[in-house]
Amino acid sequence: MERFFKVKTTEEVLEIIRGFNPLDSETVSLEDASARVLSRDVLSPEDLPPFYRASMDGYAVRAKDTFGATESLPAFLQVCGEVLMGERPRVSVGKGQAVKISTGGMLPEGADAVVMIEYCHTLDEDTIEVSKSVSPLENVISPGDDVRSGQPVLRRGRHLRPQDIGLLAGLGISRVEVTRRPKIAIISTGDEVVDIHTRPLPGQVRDVNRYSLSAFCQALGAVPFAMGRCKDEFEALKEKIGQGLEVADSVWISGGSSVGTRDLTLKVFQALGEFELLVHGISISPGKPTIIGRVRGKPVIGLPGHISSALVVAEVFLAPFLARLSGLEQDQEPFGGRVTAEMSRNVESASGRDDYLRVRLVRQGDRLKAEPIFGKSGLISPLVEGHGLVRIHRNKEGLYEGEQVEVRLFEWMPFFMDSAS
Amino acid sequence: MERFFKVKTTEEVLEIIRGFNPLDSETVSLEDASARVLSRDVLSPEDLPPFYRASMDGYAVRAKDTFGATESLPAFLQVCGEVLMGERPRVSVGKGQAVKISTGGMLPEGADAVVMIEYCHTLDEDTIEVSKSVSPLENVISPGDDVRSGQPVLRRGRHLRPQDIGLLAGLGISRVEVTRRPKIAIISTGDEVVDIHTRPLPGQVRDVNRYSLSAFCQALGAVPFAMGRCKDEFEALKEKIGQGLEVADSVWISGGSSVGTRDLTLKVFQALGEFELLVHGISISPGKPTIIGRVRGKPVIGLPGHISSALVVAEVFLAPFLARLSGLEQDQEPFGGRVTAEMSRNVESASGRDDYLRVRLVRQGDRLKAEPIFGKSGLISPLVEGHGLVRIHRNKEGLYEGEQVEVRLFEWMPFFMDSAS
Repeated sequence: MERFFKVKTTEEVLEIIRGFNPLDSETVSLEDASARVLSRDVLSPEDLPPFYRASMDGYAVRAKDTFGATESLPAFLQVCGEVLMGERPRVSVGKGQAVKISTGGMLPEGADAVVMIEYCHTLDEDTIEVSKSVSPLENVISPGDDVRSGQPVLRRGRHLRPQDIGLLAGLGISRVEVTRRPKIAIISTGDEVVDIHTRPLPGQVRDVNRYSLSAFCQALGAVPFAMGRCKDEFEALKEKIGQGLEVADSVWISGGSSVGTRDLTLKVFQALGEFELLVHGISISPGKPTIIGRVRGKPVIGLPGHISSALVVAEVFLAPFLARLSGLEQDQEPFGGRVTAEMSRNVESASGRDDYLRVRLVRQGDRLKAEPIFGKSGLISPLVEGHGLVRIHRNKEGLYEGEQVEVRLFEWMPFFMDSAS
Repeated sequence: MERFFKVKTTEEVLEIIRGFNPLDSETVSLEDASARVLSRDVLSPEDLPPFYRASMDGYAVRAKDTFGATESLPAFLQVCGEVLMGERPRVSVGKGQAVKISTGGMLPEGADAVVMIEYCHTLDEDTIEVSKSVSPLENVISPGDDVRSGQPVLRRGRHLRPQDIGLLAGLGISRVEVTRRPKIAIISTGDEVVDIHTRPLPGQVRDVNRYSLSAFCQALGAVPFAMGRCKDEFEALKEKIGQGLEVADSVWISGGSSVGTRDLTLKVFQALGEFELLVHGISISPGKPTIIGRVRGKPVIGLPGHISSALVVAEVFLAPFLARLSGLEQDQEPFGGRVTAEMSRNVESASGRDDYLRVRLVRQGDRLKAEPIFGKSGLISPLVEGHGLVRIHRNKEGLYEGEQVEVRLFEWMPFFMDSAS
């Protein structure tokens, strides 16, 4: 590298990630829109509901005919018909009259309220006794009560939940414009890495990263392209990354964490052309030897070879990276996905870097304890046994037993734009 | 119904849901295992790692040759080769010797520790100066350090996260037995309900529930079968539900919330044979007119017609229902998905039923406020504007401004087994 590159802080790297552009958009049908991210505001094309609807079962009436009605002094109304569901009412409600109506039925002409069935007592075929007065529009939904025509109902940058999709269906919007799902090419490098279907010889290990990183992408709504393994050779790696850049929106290479391999990845990035180095090392542990750049306009990520380190980098940086590419925008910090717990013991930490502790959460009565799971660098079991990560800020020398900490849960990531709090 | 059915409490309904059986299992490849639920324990077939590995770049040595080494009094070692990645070492380490090794390399015969490259200074081609002592097994991962052969590494009932899938890949387990995804037949009833692609006539409304409930299933890893709309007619509904029972594991019918429609649904359930009524009404609002039963051994659910009510029932009961069918088991309460907030105002509530308030979360400095979103029954916009639900317990008459409440977030549901706390 010509320029001198300083290891960057968590905040600096997250800021760089915010600099990537969301992907372009595509149109999908409502059936396929679950959890997708809107790429433009949706304006309501009409009022919802489009007509006055009953919100209760009962009788459509003129409210003032019921004024003063009580159990001891009921109002008597003449029943002049029934509203059939799904039809425009065939009768109208005159003074002293009532029309039977079900929830969702269209209010007949003349009526301005609905008396709940519980307060109506049938005297004979044509007459009811109403024991409670209703005010105008009581038990009635007016046109536009839910949404008014022309109003922005859903904003770009938000992901679609079941209720959002329901609202779109209610408005007759059967196709929506959403940001494309990020396609991620995943490459594992290392002369020691072999396919998981073969029995490794002494010195060899199975290709764990391909599967973990693919599952990580899937969990976040991205589409992984497993490009396979690659030896630590310049030409082979250049060809593989080149293929990845052709089919995907971003290429992730996880390599042996040795210095030589990292240099090789950088050299290949440079050789591919139009390379811009953005991050060369992050002041975190684990995960320091991470590279972020752009090759031919597409983000490329060099991850540590140990999956335990690569997954911490993924949780802290690649979740917001995928959120960014997916077009997610939050008007405020997202909620959930983090819980407050008490450290179960003292933990020392080297200052100058953020330490991400893997912790197990344990309830003890009313209290929630975070128990750090230690283990040598490179083990995956602490991640498997853990519920989440605790950040020890680089300005701190550790955490004390009993100290309140925020645990970032592993399980929760779908719509998560971190601000390194 | 012959038996008298009392409206059930939230807790009673959740207990009934726990009585349903998980679905049968299927075998999937590791590529398709993300977020699936294991249906049997996985035991490790081998030690991981299977050999002594370096966890740092440096030199493999006999630890005792470095004892006492410091910067001012370094140990001198003879370099007798290098370990190539992915190969069994061709050299062994004798007394006073060292072999170059990269992270992940296999430890050569004779060596019992690795000195990090930072503490080794090359004097000439054959000699290094070691300025720090290492203890036996320092910077070395031993066979079985991650997982021991025969050890249960992942328990049945847990869903597979990226790290879990990584561990399975590392052990060479390329196929896993998981519980089938629940297939849910979704039927919308109501004479007023029309397809979303048509322009509703006065009195008609579009079929919102089909899309919302399908999206809800998708968000929870279930597979929706949209069976279409059905008029409120006995024979038509019987045929539709019969079809649903044939293709799906459970049938969900959302109907007009009028009394007549609910009775019709019950009659059809009875007529289909082998019907067992489990829940006929729940003491919650919204969502009271909910029916849960079994027809021919399969769970059937009758939901309120208003999507706003149906989705509250879905969040509170159908999320745990799908978790149960999916085989999820939690050794402890799950974490996350809930945040504590302060009520922004007083809210009254009728006692005798649980009220589920829709709330918006707003940060005010350090405090998180829950603002209730009011609106007439049957509106969907309060759900669209909201972040989650607050339960007002049936023994309470309301909530006070400033009171601490737990907000159940809408966005978080994937692995959620509620205990109605």
